[in-house]
Amino acid sequence: MEQNSIKKRVVGVDIGNAVTTYAIVDVRGNVIAHDHFLTTDYPNINKYVEKLAESILTMAEAQGGYETIRSVGISCPSATYTSGCIENAANLPWKGIVPLGAMLRDQLGIAVALGNDAHNTALGEKMYGCAHGMKNFIVLNLGIGLGSCFFSEGHEHLGAHGYAGEIGHTCIEENGRPCPCGLKGCLEAYVAAAGIVQTAHELMQQTDTPSKMRNIETLNPKIITELCDEGDTLAIEVYRLTGNYFGRGLATYASIVNPEAIIITGGVSHAGHWLLDPTCESFECHVFRNMSGKVRIMLSDLDDAERDVLGASALAWTVPEYSLFK
Amino acid sequence: MEQNSIKKRVVGVDIGNAVTTYAIVDVRGNVIAHDHFLTTDYPNINKYVEKLAESILTMAEAQGGYETIRSVGISCPSATYTSGCIENAANLPWKGIVPLGAMLRDQLGIAVALGNDAHNTALGEKMYGCAHGMKNFIVLNLGIGLGSCFFSEGHEHLGAHGYAGEIGHTCIEENGRPCPCGLKGCLEAYVAAAGIVQTAHELMQQTDTPSKMRNIETLNPKIITELCDEGDTLAIEVYRLTGNYFGRGLATYASIVNPEAIIITGGVSHAGHWLLDPTCESFECHVFRNMSGKVRIMLSDLDDAERDVLGASALAWTVPEYSLFK
Repeated sequence: MEQNSIKKRVVGVDIGNAVTTYAIVDVRGNVIAHDHFLTTDYPNINKYVEKLAESILTMAEAQGGYETIRSVGISCPSATYTSGCIENAANLPWKGIVPLGAMLRDQLGIAVALGNDAHNTALGEKMYGCAHGMKNFIVLNLGIGLGSCFFSEGHEHLGAHGYAGEIGHTCIEENGRPCPCGLKGCLEAYVAAAGIVQTAHELMQQTDTPSKMRNIETLNPKIITELCDEGDTLAIEVYRLTGNYFGRGLATYASIVNPEAIIITGGVSHAGHWLLDPTCESFECHVFRNMSGKVRIMLSDLDDAERDVLGASALAWTVPEYSLFK
Repeated sequence: MEQNSIKKRVVGVDIGNAVTTYAIVDVRGNVIAHDHFLTTDYPNINKYVEKLAESILTMAEAQGGYETIRSVGISCPSATYTSGCIENAANLPWKGIVPLGAMLRDQLGIAVALGNDAHNTALGEKMYGCAHGMKNFIVLNLGIGLGSCFFSEGHEHLGAHGYAGEIGHTCIEENGRPCPCGLKGCLEAYVAAAGIVQTAHELMQQTDTPSKMRNIETLNPKIITELCDEGDTLAIEVYRLTGNYFGRGLATYASIVNPEAIIITGGVSHAGHWLLDPTCESFECHVFRNMSGKVRIMLSDLDDAERDVLGASALAWTVPEYSLFK
């Protein structure tokens, strides 16, 4: 390869249960082009891989040529970086163990890396977001569930079996709320979307405080946040209780990992200061004293629409360049 | 330096509040010689460093010559590896910030590394103990307090400020027992020595169960273990409750770090199966489901008398060789 043909662009692919988004991203994190198709249209994994490869090739040809693409990074639920496989994903159409990384590499002829959402989100924050330049930090994804990944001395910590970061399934309340994972009292059951709604319903039952929440049939964190903005005291109390749990969980996480910062992403993070203020207060009350005042808790500043493909593209840079077509 | 003069021995120094132990250790972890003096005899730090340097030189000259010693590793409470300083040690004679690493290096003319007990114990387990060959593992020191250190992908995780591993000061019981650290409900307040004794006293008050513990003025974990061996049901219950808390705390730790193994050292670990069995049971009940059955919890198999200097000697190998006398 000639010196001036060094490849400075990668492809990031974010596989959601419903939609697959893919983009060409340059070395500075600029999204050159992006597009999507329905994941659910391809229940057969071979057809899915064909569609994905074809989509990437078409986009690359329209954007300066396929030979400018260095590698591909994929974010996918239940994906394990170490094996390159999707493993028993609950909500994807493909069951069992799917070696998606190898399958796509064979179609494309360039290096493909596969990781899960939490892992790649953290990579994206390090490469292009708040965590740029940090060596020890935690990135949390708070939405339907609570996933996380932490960096240790500059590299992502995966753990012995690739399961590290499961703060969502640590016990915050002995014999507390049942969690779909099978355990009881998990942090996720209190601070992720369904837990927040449950807290709202419990508060409405326990008190007579008037609240617009009482008139809404299907609550969600977004609606509760809007009611906070309107000054609804019970809605504010929902996030106060949530933050109390969340801050305690994060204090435990920080006392073990001693991060420079904790960066929060995900749908529920849009609650903003309604969640962040009580979280920080509870965090400072519970964290190991020597760390008090030293760990920054912040919201991600990456664009919501780009975060997932940026994370996937960051993963693409972590694999060695490889090409069948030299 | 000639090829055949490669230095294959180091010195490990363990500074305890009462006694300083030092030893020459070879590359395979054989303790060639060891000796000790009273830390408390040297309240002046300059005199202490002089005494330590002189002791090391004397021992080295008697054991093949000072020029065979590559470097020195020191274990000390409140020592921070990143700064090479002892920082505000509560129970040592020297107050404030003490740059002990640099001070001893200037006296000896060879490289000196300084770390805290938990950190070096983990290094020792990796180099010479149960953790040999492991990349992701946790080492806990359970005694007067509960310290820990974990390895991430083959290297020790220190954290942003060198405080990582403070599982002892994570909240296991909201608004629980006060801890000397200033927090409430810390794991250490339930599972370290004083906490175990407190549990024993609480059990004696809450029940009428006969127990030899009732006749003993000053209980400690060792006595309670001996009573377990005699079949004392209340003593056994003390460790059952302790293990219940400990297993829950370790499950949280493991769910975050996903280690291959958790290795337990320290005085309280001599309770053996009385503590280990209920700990493992509680651990399996609380750990993230995908890790269930995959994380080994084990007691250190290093010799008690050698563990601390071995850990310090392991640290000595982590610094680059350096000598004023070439």
